[in-house]
Amino acid sequence: MSKKIGWIGTGVMGGAMAGHLMTAGYELRVYTRSREKAVDLLDRGACWCTSPAEAADGADFVGVMVGFPEDVEEVFLGEHGVLSTVKAGAVIADFTTRSPALAQRIAAVADERGVGSLVAPVSGGDVGAQNASLSIMIGGDPAVFEQARPVFEAIGKTLVLQGPAGSGQHTKMVNQVVVASTMIGICEALIYARRAGLDPVRVLDSIGGGAATSWGLVNLYPRMLKEDYLPGFYVEHFVKDMGIALEECMRMNIELPGLKLASELYGKLVEMGHGRDGTQALILALDALNA
Amino acid sequence: MSKKIGWIGTGVMGGAMAGHLMTAGYELRVYTRSREKAVDLLDRGACWCTSPAEAADGADFVGVMVGFPEDVEEVFLGEHGVLSTVKAGAVIADFTTRSPALAQRIAAVADERGVGSLVAPVSGGDVGAQNASLSIMIGGDPAVFEQARPVFEAIGKTLVLQGPAGSGQHTKMVNQVVVASTMIGICEALIYARRAGLDPVRVLDSIGGGAATSWGLVNLYPRMLKEDYLPGFYVEHFVKDMGIALEECMRMNIELPGLKLASELYGKLVEMGHGRDGTQALILALDALNA
Repeated sequence: MSKKIGWIGTGVMGGAMAGHLMTAGYELRVYTRSREKAVDLLDRGACWCTSPAEAADGADFVGVMVGFPEDVEEVFLGEHGVLSTVKAGAVIADFTTRSPALAQRIAAVADERGVGSLVAPVSGGDVGAQNASLSIMIGGDPAVFEQARPVFEAIGKTLVLQGPAGSGQHTKMVNQVVVASTMIGICEALIYARRAGLDPVRVLDSIGGGAATSWGLVNLYPRMLKEDYLPGFYVEHFVKDMGIALEECMRMNIELPGLKLASELYGKLVEMGHGRDGTQALILALDALNA
Repeated sequence: MSKKIGWIGTGVMGGAMAGHLMTAGYELRVYTRSREKAVDLLDRGACWCTSPAEAADGADFVGVMVGFPEDVEEVFLGEHGVLSTVKAGAVIADFTTRSPALAQRIAAVADERGVGSLVAPVSGGDVGAQNASLSIMIGGDPAVFEQARPVFEAIGKTLVLQGPAGSGQHTKMVNQVVVASTMIGICEALIYARRAGLDPVRVLDSIGGGAATSWGLVNLYPRMLKEDYLPGFYVEHFVKDMGIALEECMRMNIELPGLKLASELYGKLVEMGHGRDGTQALILALDALNA
């Protein structure tokens, strides 16, 4: 893999990931919807492009990290999309979480043009993106993954090829299914602790090291105590992910009542105006339920 | 604190805890419902007693670890109960999880007789009991706790005085509230992973180190994969704990929908005949829901 990378999407996650690629010595061609979100990268010498097509032009690897599935379709398949210019033999990788069906359509077009494609959603949030400690759940061809491995190694710590196209997305859905109910448990615990007159900090001293512990309890519960709702991971993105997971459940004919409950509670949270807060804001929906 | 301990209840948890006390050099007087469950301790030199009263007679500290609230009442307040013989100045500690109301009744009787009382439910399961790495959530008087601290240090790692009588029980309830929804998330993840055709072991490689991770994911998900439902922590005890938590919620006028869902799913699991399995058997209730 040579050194030219096209990168689309420089939000909380994408910006940090692109930064690691520059640190690793890659030459970056950057496109993102709002140029001001790319200034840090441009200051460091990245080249500004005015479309995904321009960013992909001449690149050996094109990475995409945007918020919503609609955007992904436009970015890859639109008139000025990545696949209108990317060269044969290059690898495109979509780090966005979206439906397995869209993944397959993009893979088919890429394949026709001799372009390798990987779908590689990530987990680990803002902290993981900043520390290059993301878990990357990869779906695609093993040879294509090996070709792109150095790029992945610059941005993530846990790199697992889960299987063919779609597997990475499904694995990310599994991740979100776990997180969904875990977040409910953490918020309900805080509601209970407060109403029972306990000191919620001392409670964490007792339960944070045992059978109740989780990433969320250690990392997000303290933010809830401080009423710090800064994202981390946006509520509205989590709601989107759970929507995809529920659609897939319907397709696979399975019922996951915990996921359904979490989706309803987070939906309420969006209605309350907290879509751009971090997922720990779920405590506000449970507070409202118990007001 | 001198060296004579009365110990009641030698099941999975209580037996291991009593063993650590013998290792620490305490002289043990043991009572449990089925003598054969105490043979290991008796072989090591513990003294067999035929009632809680006999075990408590002359002891400086009396520990109780039995399964159900009804048992706790009988053990402490019954005709041949601990409080009929225990000497003034001793400390009694109940490690059982039960309702805060019962805790207060026992504390009142103990107080009348000049006996210090602590309610100290534990978390950490069979592994925690075996490694003396339990988290012990203590409610009671600080001076009484200091008097008994050496005993607690022999069986647990995380010792936190949560506040007055009742606080330990409430903290344990908080622990169970977290675990309840976390377990749903883990089981639903496995259902999803299997239906989507993923390799559930490889999935754990991807999600086990990130935002989805929890004690249950790391410790119980692998047991689910092996269809190993040995307890750990009995389903029927967890159902009892959730029942107490839901009663307390009603009393405090709070609604915890995740806890309610978990209680229903685990209730179904008991109906299916899995009350004496470990809590990881919850996957069977979700399998049944999706059969």
